[in-house]
Amino acid sequence: MMLRSLSVFPRLHPPFNPTRTFSTFRIQSMLTSELSDVEVSSLRANKERLAKDLHHSCQWGYGIRWGDNPTDTGMQRLALSEEDKSVRDWFIQTTKELKCNVTVDQMGNIFAVRPGRRADVPATFIGSHLDTQPTGGRYDGILGVLAGIEVLKTMNDMGLETKGGVGVVNWTNEEGARFPVSMISSGVWAECISLEHAHGLKEVPTVASLPTAASAPETMKSALQKINYLGETPCSYKSSPMAAHFELHIEQGPHLVSAGQRIGVVTAVQAYRWFRLNIIGRDTHTGTTAFEHRADALYAFARMMVRAREVAASKGCLASVGIVEAKPGSVNTVPGLVSFSLDIRGPETELVAKVEEELRADFDAIAAAEGAGIGKPCRVEWTLDFDSPAVIFHQDCIDCVQESADAVVSDAPVADTKSLVRPIMSGAGHDSVFTSKRVPTSMIFIPCKDGLSHHPEEFSTADDCATGVSVILQAVVRYDRKRFA
Amino acid sequence: MMLRSLSVFPRLHPPFNPTRTFSTFRIQSMLTSELSDVEVSSLRANKERLAKDLHHSCQWGYGIRWGDNPTDTGMQRLALSEEDKSVRDWFIQTTKELKCNVTVDQMGNIFAVRPGRRADVPATFIGSHLDTQPTGGRYDGILGVLAGIEVLKTMNDMGLETKGGVGVVNWTNEEGARFPVSMISSGVWAECISLEHAHGLKEVPTVASLPTAASAPETMKSALQKINYLGETPCSYKSSPMAAHFELHIEQGPHLVSAGQRIGVVTAVQAYRWFRLNIIGRDTHTGTTAFEHRADALYAFARMMVRAREVAASKGCLASVGIVEAKPGSVNTVPGLVSFSLDIRGPETELVAKVEEELRADFDAIAAAEGAGIGKPCRVEWTLDFDSPAVIFHQDCIDCVQESADAVVSDAPVADTKSLVRPIMSGAGHDSVFTSKRVPTSMIFIPCKDGLSHHPEEFSTADDCATGVSVILQAVVRYDRKRFA
Repeated sequence: MMLRSLSVFPRLHPPFNPTRTFSTFRIQSMLTSELSDVEVSSLRANKERLAKDLHHSCQWGYGIRWGDNPTDTGMQRLALSEEDKSVRDWFIQTTKELKCNVTVDQMGNIFAVRPGRRADVPATFIGSHLDTQPTGGRYDGILGVLAGIEVLKTMNDMGLETKGGVGVVNWTNEEGARFPVSMISSGVWAECISLEHAHGLKEVPTVASLPTAASAPETMKSALQKINYLGETPCSYKSSPMAAHFELHIEQGPHLVSAGQRIGVVTAVQAYRWFRLNIIGRDTHTGTTAFEHRADALYAFARMMVRAREVAASKGCLASVGIVEAKPGSVNTVPGLVSFSLDIRGPETELVAKVEEELRADFDAIAAAEGAGIGKPCRVEWTLDFDSPAVIFHQDCIDCVQESADAVVSDAPVADTKSLVRPIMSGAGHDSVFTSKRVPTSMIFIPCKDGLSHHPEEFSTADDCATGVSVILQAVVRYDRKRFA
Repeated sequence: MMLRSLSVFPRLHPPFNPTRTFSTFRIQSMLTSELSDVEVSSLRANKERLAKDLHHSCQWGYGIRWGDNPTDTGMQRLALSEEDKSVRDWFIQTTKELKCNVTVDQMGNIFAVRPGRRADVPATFIGSHLDTQPTGGRYDGILGVLAGIEVLKTMNDMGLETKGGVGVVNWTNEEGARFPVSMISSGVWAECISLEHAHGLKEVPTVASLPTAASAPETMKSALQKINYLGETPCSYKSSPMAAHFELHIEQGPHLVSAGQRIGVVTAVQAYRWFRLNIIGRDTHTGTTAFEHRADALYAFARMMVRAREVAASKGCLASVGIVEAKPGSVNTVPGLVSFSLDIRGPETELVAKVEEELRADFDAIAAAEGAGIGKPCRVEWTLDFDSPAVIFHQDCIDCVQESADAVVSDAPVADTKSLVRPIMSGAGHDSVFTSKRVPTSMIFIPCKDGLSHHPEEFSTADDCATGVSVILQAVVRYDRKRFA
């Protein structure tokens, strides 16, 4: 009996015949609650279709080439760029074809909902982002959105219905690369960031690929208007409610790939704080000004950056500088002004605070030493741009992911398949950080080559991608079953 | 008799009556060789007129305000900008009104020559530059050109004729701030730099005030054409010959002002080398990449800059970074590429070479350490942009300046007026470095406040400026007398 049911739910591995599966369910459409546990565990995504769709979507904004295959390029699809508009248009067209209702909110977040049996409850969402870093890859964020599309396609093919709807959301400017606050649009949705602040945010001038950035920087609002993605729906969890939010992502770190593991069940996200700092010194001539007569803001910066790594490492944290600008920017003038970003991360909110506290004292001391000889020492100013305390994900979601992961890897050719799944903490922030503040949330990680991310050569195999999508497919089904049990 | 002659050569201190002096000489025009030594020593510039002309010329491209007086601003007059065009037009109009023949060469260098008695010999030149740093002041370069104008005005007022002509030259892009090779146009004139290389040089993108710089950088040639200063005269000491080149400049260092001295007789210019360096690491995610998994090009840069100061200081040299760019320039991406400028200077050519040699080894070691953990260490590339060996100026010119300086300060209210004059070495490069390779050359320094330069608050008193111009006036007269003695 059970074996017969399984023939109705073929493992959707290649060779996959969608017509047959589809027609099976056209005859006998089925609700998630009507599936047996074994049937749920046998659900799989279509690896080839997923890979095809993912790389198809990467035609808009493909970046630096690093290999010979057509898909061996990075991505450069900055939020709200022309390339981003193109992939958004494709996303809407595709989800509409999958019978979704699509809405766009005031931050350009796109919500595509495949209706469930009950119209009076919010959908369970799969979400991530389609924007990338300036030298990003094809998986960070993109896989998470494409996972949602593949889940919808699989469900449609099978005629599988859910009690609550299933949604896919594309969050705007998750990377914070063009507009320098990451996850800003899920932050507005969660009502943790004000719409006014977000709309007024200016693009970073160092993103050189955008010709406007240096001369007449766009705001988020003007950029949204320019590509016609300033929606009318208020950006809020109240206007676009969710039952839960699941996100599939590459690990962006080396743990899974080093250990040969297949799935990370993400239980938490480390804390982090982003700062902008200014060091104010004094412009002087490089050829005529002795070291003791200088207030060299760039030299002070160099000492600070070296110190930041020492302090962070001593506390098991990370400290990184991604952006630096020195002014006036002339070979023979000692820079009198340096601006830079500082990104401090750690497993606990308190540890990040301790690193910050120590660095504030150390940076003051470094600044005071530079220029002391002329009685005009450098000084340093800190601005907190972003504060993301450590996050613990929702146990119901974690459980759904854990069960699904164990099920999906169960046919792997190893003795202890459960060893292929591990609980993991996210080092990076994700939109799930903000959704977790309003709705049950958790994430799924898959391995990526060398743990590399934010780099054109960022890579995950088609197998690993499909494994991740199979897990999120089952997790959404399990969650739908649980919430109406 | 001598006293009567002196009444013919009134010390041109305020109150100065140009009409009377002028009319005196209209009756009895006089050649430099006909002056007595005491008469030469009594020659003075007009302090008020000099100050008025200098600040008048600073209306084009005035920069950051730092005080309440109308002239309390810095300068931002980048080479071949619209502001530079305006002051060039003024320079040509002014020198033509002073009866000069004006030519413009292929680098936009402007030569204004007041003819002497003999048309068959080259003129003795006074020269410097009208361009400034992006956050420069009102004296660096500008004083040197205005000194030439004031010398011509004084000579015209007095009806003083020279045997060889007297010229004033404005050299293009001395600062190297917009087009990143300093003294490039005197370098082409001296045939030490090729015209093709100079014409092809692109503007620095970090000079943010120029909107073209980031998107479509001008070359020197296109910039010359744009403001109509691409002259037809070949840029060469053969086509625009000089008998000698004298340059008046602020010290840009603290020695004169600290010692209360009035004039520096510049005997030499320290050696320097300018490099562009690239550090190639690997872009990765700041939140998920442990320090030992990074090849952080910016962290390597920070260590290199700290090391550069240590090594330079140990050898009595200077090492400075004025420009730094980190790519891709995103808060949460570890920069995989950093480019920066390195300016090494020292009193001897060999010392600069030793600093370079040591830094090449140290930088390689720093790069090798960063990323070693992943087997993909950073690497560093050096490009030499500019090499200026130490220069010794011409003894004839130095002698003229020394005698003139001693004469000009002789009426100061101190016991030992000669103590107000000192021999000095230039820390900065100047166009005189290149002219010295082809014709007898030397320089004159005056004190500047706090030794500060390449800064909006760069300042010299009107008295000190006039003292300097009086010295260069006498030096040109003495040189004219010597060469035809």
